[in-house]
Amino acid sequence: MKKSALQKARAAYQPKLPIVLTGAVKAVEGKATNSVADQEDIQKLFPNTYGLPEIHFEKGPAVKSAPINVGVILSGGQAPGGHNVISGLFDGIKKVNRDSRLYGFLMGPGGFVDHKYMELTASYIDEYRNTGGFDIIGSGRTKLETKAQFDKGLEILKELNIKALVIIGGDDSNTNAAILAEYYKSINAGVQVIGCPKTIDGDLKNEMIETSFGFDTATKVYSEVIGNIQRDCNSSKKYWHFIKLMGRSASHIALECALQCQPNVCIISEEVEAKKETLNDIVNSIADVVAARAANGNNFGSVLIPEGLIEFIPAMKALIAELNDLLADNAEEFAKIDRQNQLSWIVDRLSSENASIFNSLPEGVARQLCLDRDPHGNVQVSLIETEKLLGEMVGRRLNEMKAEGRYVGKFASMFHFFGYEGRCADPSNFDADYCYALGFNAACLINAGVTGYMSSVRGLTKPSVQWTTGGIPITMMMNMERRHGAMKPVIQKALVRLDGAPFLKYAAQRDTWAINTDFIYPGPIQYFGPAEVCDQPSLTLRYEHENR
Amino acid sequence: MKKSALQKARAAYQPKLPIVLTGAVKAVEGKATNSVADQEDIQKLFPNTYGLPEIHFEKGPAVKSAPINVGVILSGGQAPGGHNVISGLFDGIKKVNRDSRLYGFLMGPGGFVDHKYMELTASYIDEYRNTGGFDIIGSGRTKLETKAQFDKGLEILKELNIKALVIIGGDDSNTNAAILAEYYKSINAGVQVIGCPKTIDGDLKNEMIETSFGFDTATKVYSEVIGNIQRDCNSSKKYWHFIKLMGRSASHIALECALQCQPNVCIISEEVEAKKETLNDIVNSIADVVAARAANGNNFGSVLIPEGLIEFIPAMKALIAELNDLLADNAEEFAKIDRQNQLSWIVDRLSSENASIFNSLPEGVARQLCLDRDPHGNVQVSLIETEKLLGEMVGRRLNEMKAEGRYVGKFASMFHFFGYEGRCADPSNFDADYCYALGFNAACLINAGVTGYMSSVRGLTKPSVQWTTGGIPITMMMNMERRHGAMKPVIQKALVRLDGAPFLKYAAQRDTWAINTDFIYPGPIQYFGPAEVCDQPSLTLRYEHENR
Repeated sequence: MKKSALQKARAAYQPKLPIVLTGAVKAVEGKATNSVADQEDIQKLFPNTYGLPEIHFEKGPAVKSAPINVGVILSGGQAPGGHNVISGLFDGIKKVNRDSRLYGFLMGPGGFVDHKYMELTASYIDEYRNTGGFDIIGSGRTKLETKAQFDKGLEILKELNIKALVIIGGDDSNTNAAILAEYYKSINAGVQVIGCPKTIDGDLKNEMIETSFGFDTATKVYSEVIGNIQRDCNSSKKYWHFIKLMGRSASHIALECALQCQPNVCIISEEVEAKKETLNDIVNSIADVVAARAANGNNFGSVLIPEGLIEFIPAMKALIAELNDLLADNAEEFAKIDRQNQLSWIVDRLSSENASIFNSLPEGVARQLCLDRDPHGNVQVSLIETEKLLGEMVGRRLNEMKAEGRYVGKFASMFHFFGYEGRCADPSNFDADYCYALGFNAACLINAGVTGYMSSVRGLTKPSVQWTTGGIPITMMMNMERRHGAMKPVIQKALVRLDGAPFLKYAAQRDTWAINTDFIYPGPIQYFGPAEVCDQPSLTLRYEHENR
Repeated sequence: MKKSALQKARAAYQPKLPIVLTGAVKAVEGKATNSVADQEDIQKLFPNTYGLPEIHFEKGPAVKSAPINVGVILSGGQAPGGHNVISGLFDGIKKVNRDSRLYGFLMGPGGFVDHKYMELTASYIDEYRNTGGFDIIGSGRTKLETKAQFDKGLEILKELNIKALVIIGGDDSNTNAAILAEYYKSINAGVQVIGCPKTIDGDLKNEMIETSFGFDTATKVYSEVIGNIQRDCNSSKKYWHFIKLMGRSASHIALECALQCQPNVCIISEEVEAKKETLNDIVNSIADVVAARAANGNNFGSVLIPEGLIEFIPAMKALIAELNDLLADNAEEFAKIDRQNQLSWIVDRLSSENASIFNSLPEGVARQLCLDRDPHGNVQVSLIETEKLLGEMVGRRLNEMKAEGRYVGKFASMFHFFGYEGRCADPSNFDADYCYALGFNAACLINAGVTGYMSSVRGLTKPSVQWTTGGIPITMMMNMERRHGAMKPVIQKALVRLDGAPFLKYAAQRDTWAINTDFIYPGPIQYFGPAEVCDQPSLTLRYEHENR
């Protein structure tokens, strides 16, 4: 691997470990816990791992521990800092006993089931410290859900004498980690399972898990390029930039970038849903901002759009559901319709309400809704170019407003989608430290003998040396939700709270940002400069903590 | 303007001025110059400013100079560092005499013609030092070409007692600067005109102008996000990323990013043209790389594509030319054709060779070629999503190869276009220093009394304090080219040279990069770290200089 100059310089970075983890620790048990909801159901499903106490670590006497073999899995989409979780875990188990060993399962949970793995040695780990990506062992989206998978995985754990498995993943992967922990406990498999909270989307968080790793770095990369685009926009003063941002289930990314960059408009899916807004409502509100700025001579601006928006618009959700049924029920007939008659065939068969929404869509989007279906026959919502959809519809709306004398200006638009640009960036100092601490702390949880816990590092707006660490029973974060037609225990997803500090900060300023040009240009992540540039956590985290 | 933490820290950066410019200088004349071609024609067109000597600056005795009023224009697309050219110019004329004044014309050459301007004061300038963007005075694309514009502009110059005008622009803007200089000289207007070489495209360079400013920073931003995408690609191992990069007239940006990131494929437009490759040739060569990697189990990779590619494919150029004529000659008839019959109407009327190319295009692109036309009736080539065109065609080609048993693999693609992300980034240390020196040096050229010169700072691979500076007669870079049907004097555009060191370095390694996964991940621009991370000029520049 040929390394860039930055990678070489960055390899020397020593993550700042919380002071409590720098010496020997003892695990201190707190109160027994309950799940956030549906306590009875969850308890029934997790008889062996429900109600465990929270744990925090304090300085303790040095105790000699036997070497332990540990396995690690990267699950799901990439997030900056995964390599540091693994290097922290490695250093943690080596500190316990230098003969401990770490095995990485390759390409995600699939490698665990298929017995594909490698031993992670010191020299191999050193190649990946403080770097982005999950390429150290690869990642994958196989879901660990079935007893057959659990048993198959146990074979390789036995073969390698692995006593603990660390699963680095998002809410689904950690839910499955809890189910796996429960199962191994129920059969006395002698294998602990520990989770680590990963996702750039920022939707795995709660009182005890203050943020998921990767969110900080990814939003900083997006904010860099959004800032650059806004500066371009404010220099040539002739384009509206519609910028879609990853984050399908929640709008934390868009919100954080809005707080960082102060765009003219940022759509928050959770608000759209709460207010039962229609696509036209959204289009009209953007068009109103464009017109108001045009009245001041400003025919330019920026609009941030969360990737998952479409699914949060109740009327679009209803349309998509009807389309899915219609096309599934009439697949053969539809396949015979000529391309030019497809759209009218559909309109004729939709309920009048949905037909009128369907008719209001630009042709390209309408076609996308009926043609590109996933293997289950459902619309691939993530393929819909929401940024172009909104841009086109805003353009049409402005033409109407112009005819009504309510808009005088020129409207030209540019489109962007940022996601892959940030998922594998080199971790910011925050994520580098946080991830290393999460991994190191996971080793301490293993040494404490617990299972079904998530590694928890808290007090994250303080300097990293002051962070507190411990473990949270994963069942504590669970509730029951309907998935694929059946009620399942799952970790509650953290959506943007409309009564939360980050959203309120945004809501309080957005009318000003809409009309003025109050762009901020954050610039690229810095690793070597002054602390106020290099070591600041996300604004989302800072605002959330201000109110605590 | 609310500033980001980085902007605040960066405001304190003091660009490292070439040592020669730190004290009083004297202008030393070199030999009289000739244009690079068409000497007789150019001389006829520039009787007053042709054949001027090169100038370089040496330390000289301090001479008391009168205050001077100077005007400055930002012309054309944004490039990182424009603000530093202006701050260097400001500091330069203030050093000559603290009562000198700098006026900025607003929103490009249009502000000059329309008499829209502002005085640039010390406190205003300070807000913009070391920042990206052209928002200090805005930029625009109005071309300064006519006597009426020149005379109109002269009115405001006289009114403000401006004795020198600095035009910061690309090859066209500097061509016009030369024409303006010649005109003002011919009428004894008493106004000097000095150009500064700007363009992220990197196509304004020659023996005396080693690089245009902005190229360094923009390519570093693109390389950052390309690197991040490649790391993502190498972590999930399931996508081919097709990445289009700005640069319509030349492929310097794509080439530099390829040297920085080592993608699996990079198309160089100049090579496509030289080898008379067809669209199918390009598609086949990419498909071959995809298949070869798939044979090794690697169903992922990266492809870099220069924005202007289509116009460099001789066969596509011919098709577009015929389409332009066909649709212009039959506009009325075509307008009456039903959408579903448009493509076949066209195919029936094209020459058989062009019809077959047209038929081979994905429908979306074919429609783009016949529908979206600019006000002159020409295809808007820049709107063609070349990255999707290639991705789709490669997919089709792979299906054929699969049927022939020559490809076993899975092909899924993702598309990106980077341009606006880099044009207004905060300048790298290189661009911050280079731009400041260009502007400061322009002040020295003004003080030396010359006109029709471009500010020239050389020896750019050395530390900035060792750079040499001077001025080059713009006519020296000119030749005659056909533009809009007539022969015009223009600055020769610097395309990627297929015998140049940067291309040869790439060509020597690309077969290895294609099959292996040799990705490099450069990471974001750093401003505060070690010199080997923060102060390296582009690889293009370094390789070009190795051979000097």
